[in-house]
Amino acid sequence: MDRREVESGRNSPESNQPAAQISRLAIDIGGSLIKMVYFSSGNDNSVDYREEKSPLAVSTALEGKLHFLKFETSKINDCLDFISSRKQLLGGWKHDDHPGSDEKFIKATGGGAYKFTNLFKEKLGITLDKEDEMDCLVTGANFLLKTVQREAFTYMDGHEEFVQIDHNDLYPYLLVNIGSGVSMIKVDGDGKYERVSGTSVGGGTFWGLGRLLTKCKSFDELLELSHRGNNRVLDMLVGDIYGGTDYSKMGLSSTTIASSFGKAISRDKELEDYKPEDISRSLLRLISNNIGQIAYLNALRFGLKRIFFGGFFIRGHAYTMDTISVAVHFWSKGEAKAMFLRHEGFLGALGAFASYEKRNLDGLLSN
Amino acid sequence: MDRREVESGRNSPESNQPAAQISRLAIDIGGSLIKMVYFSSGNDNSVDYREEKSPLAVSTALEGKLHFLKFETSKINDCLDFISSRKQLLGGWKHDDHPGSDEKFIKATGGGAYKFTNLFKEKLGITLDKEDEMDCLVTGANFLLKTVQREAFTYMDGHEEFVQIDHNDLYPYLLVNIGSGVSMIKVDGDGKYERVSGTSVGGGTFWGLGRLLTKCKSFDELLELSHRGNNRVLDMLVGDIYGGTDYSKMGLSSTTIASSFGKAISRDKELEDYKPEDISRSLLRLISNNIGQIAYLNALRFGLKRIFFGGFFIRGHAYTMDTISVAVHFWSKGEAKAMFLRHEGFLGALGAFASYEKRNLDGLLSN
Repeated sequence: MDRREVESGRNSPESNQPAAQISRLAIDIGGSLIKMVYFSSGNDNSVDYREEKSPLAVSTALEGKLHFLKFETSKINDCLDFISSRKQLLGGWKHDDHPGSDEKFIKATGGGAYKFTNLFKEKLGITLDKEDEMDCLVTGANFLLKTVQREAFTYMDGHEEFVQIDHNDLYPYLLVNIGSGVSMIKVDGDGKYERVSGTSVGGGTFWGLGRLLTKCKSFDELLELSHRGNNRVLDMLVGDIYGGTDYSKMGLSSTTIASSFGKAISRDKELEDYKPEDISRSLLRLISNNIGQIAYLNALRFGLKRIFFGGFFIRGHAYTMDTISVAVHFWSKGEAKAMFLRHEGFLGALGAFASYEKRNLDGLLSN
Repeated sequence: MDRREVESGRNSPESNQPAAQISRLAIDIGGSLIKMVYFSSGNDNSVDYREEKSPLAVSTALEGKLHFLKFETSKINDCLDFISSRKQLLGGWKHDDHPGSDEKFIKATGGGAYKFTNLFKEKLGITLDKEDEMDCLVTGANFLLKTVQREAFTYMDGHEEFVQIDHNDLYPYLLVNIGSGVSMIKVDGDGKYERVSGTSVGGGTFWGLGRLLTKCKSFDELLELSHRGNNRVLDMLVGDIYGGTDYSKMGLSSTTIASSFGKAISRDKELEDYKPEDISRSLLRLISNNIGQIAYLNALRFGLKRIFFGGFFIRGHAYTMDTISVAVHFWSKGEAKAMFLRHEGFLGALGAFASYEKRNLDGLLSN
């Protein structure tokens, strides 16, 4: 990173214009979504309609804000248009290897950084400077946990509680990133980590199966539907098998789910006879519960007490967080705790952003 | 058990008739299926069309055969009819507590033994003598592993290999019973076990979701379809995200499933545009892989080298066994081995059957 000289907003010719100066734009191109983080300097009060989170104010040498946007990977042209419309504002930088060139670079991570590298070059003349996906997730999570106040929280029974993280007692922890698929990473320090597990049953499964089973047009609509759903319509509970009673000898209450979607085996009902909200609820519960269980088993394996859940699947959704929390609590018999991050969907993008000037990042932001 | 005197075929008035003498009939009533095991004495060559497995010949004091049948729980009347038509042949027994009564009992396990206890009493006048579900699974598995030759086998790349089990080196092992839901039991000896985990993503999920997503009329039809399916149509692979390449730094090949059903998020296709066989294949892979992973994590937790998979979900299906084997091999880096049982669906029913006269069971059958 140190071989490149970033032209900050202060030094660029546009710095005196009223328009916001964008520099340091980074993207994380996943299987379903493109997550973008960029920095705008000056008194920028504009908010783009695609912004997912409130901008994060920055108040050090570089005054300005961090913005968080998302695009669908299948509509990558929207992302290209956005970058193109602000291309002049983007800070370029001189490359030590080619001192004469004025090539523009963007830090990029996620598999799409590889898949779409030619598209960015051809359409925008921009080079994607690739950063490893897991590196970025870990850098992003460490950065948030160490720098941003009120970032991590627990969620149980509708109650959100911020957790004060002691920087000296942060490691080791398990980072569970739920994107289209799920990665589970044991984090031992800055840049010190191991991807210990994962599962293919993730956000892409929820949205993919959900689309096939309901008429929902968007992930958010499907998630919204689950609020009003009842999982007992489709899930076969212990009580359904035991005639309403618990299986108490094994500590299984009558309301425990014995078989997800197990009641759908009934010949009396076809797909169209079920309410989309009930389908959504059972699906969300299946996936959240399954991820919580596998995460816990991995935390147990390495003796990790803290599990942080990130990734765009969660999207601050109460029932999702509740189910994951209950799963971790249930399987660990109260020993382990699920924690969530306010900027959960942007770990990778933040990590890529941080890689512009890694050495100074922790000092850059402290709001 | 010893308080009841079983009227064996030899002593009953029908023993000289050509018709097979049925005694000791036991049932395991699960959320989706009723599994039945009964003993017929004499030269019985009849095979009922509902028989799932070839009868197991018995050649000790009691000559005869063990029969293995299944019924759907939703069609429990078929099961009642079957028992009713053979009721006269069923050996009753005297009950020590009520010496005068000639009540007929059937050993029964599974949640349905509780749910349907009144139904059996009212329709057939038969009392269900309930045995605990986990007790029966463990008894059934131990019995098969210790008594029946060529029972356990490994399956990999289409190759089935029988495993010789040293009786002195059988314990501990992990028993994974995949019914509508999944139970994972650490077995330390006869009657010595602990249900350590489980998952609601099991056979009921495969058949329930499969029914909703395809027009299949039966579990077997859905399973059959998966043979011809291609999971790459619906599953999002690492290569789909990375533009065809591996994510080699993390050891993930381009063909690894990143997100099950992740490609179904595409707006270009609706449910009816996908082939049922591709849906079935992706679903089977999701569930088999997930069970294999959770089983392995539990085996690891308790240091168990052997994992036996049972339950009616497997049904000797090559691709299911292959996926479970690959999952266990992948996650354990070759350390653990998945093993299967020839009578996989009848563990609980066999355990209930064994409870008629537990003490003599191991000696009863040795074919």
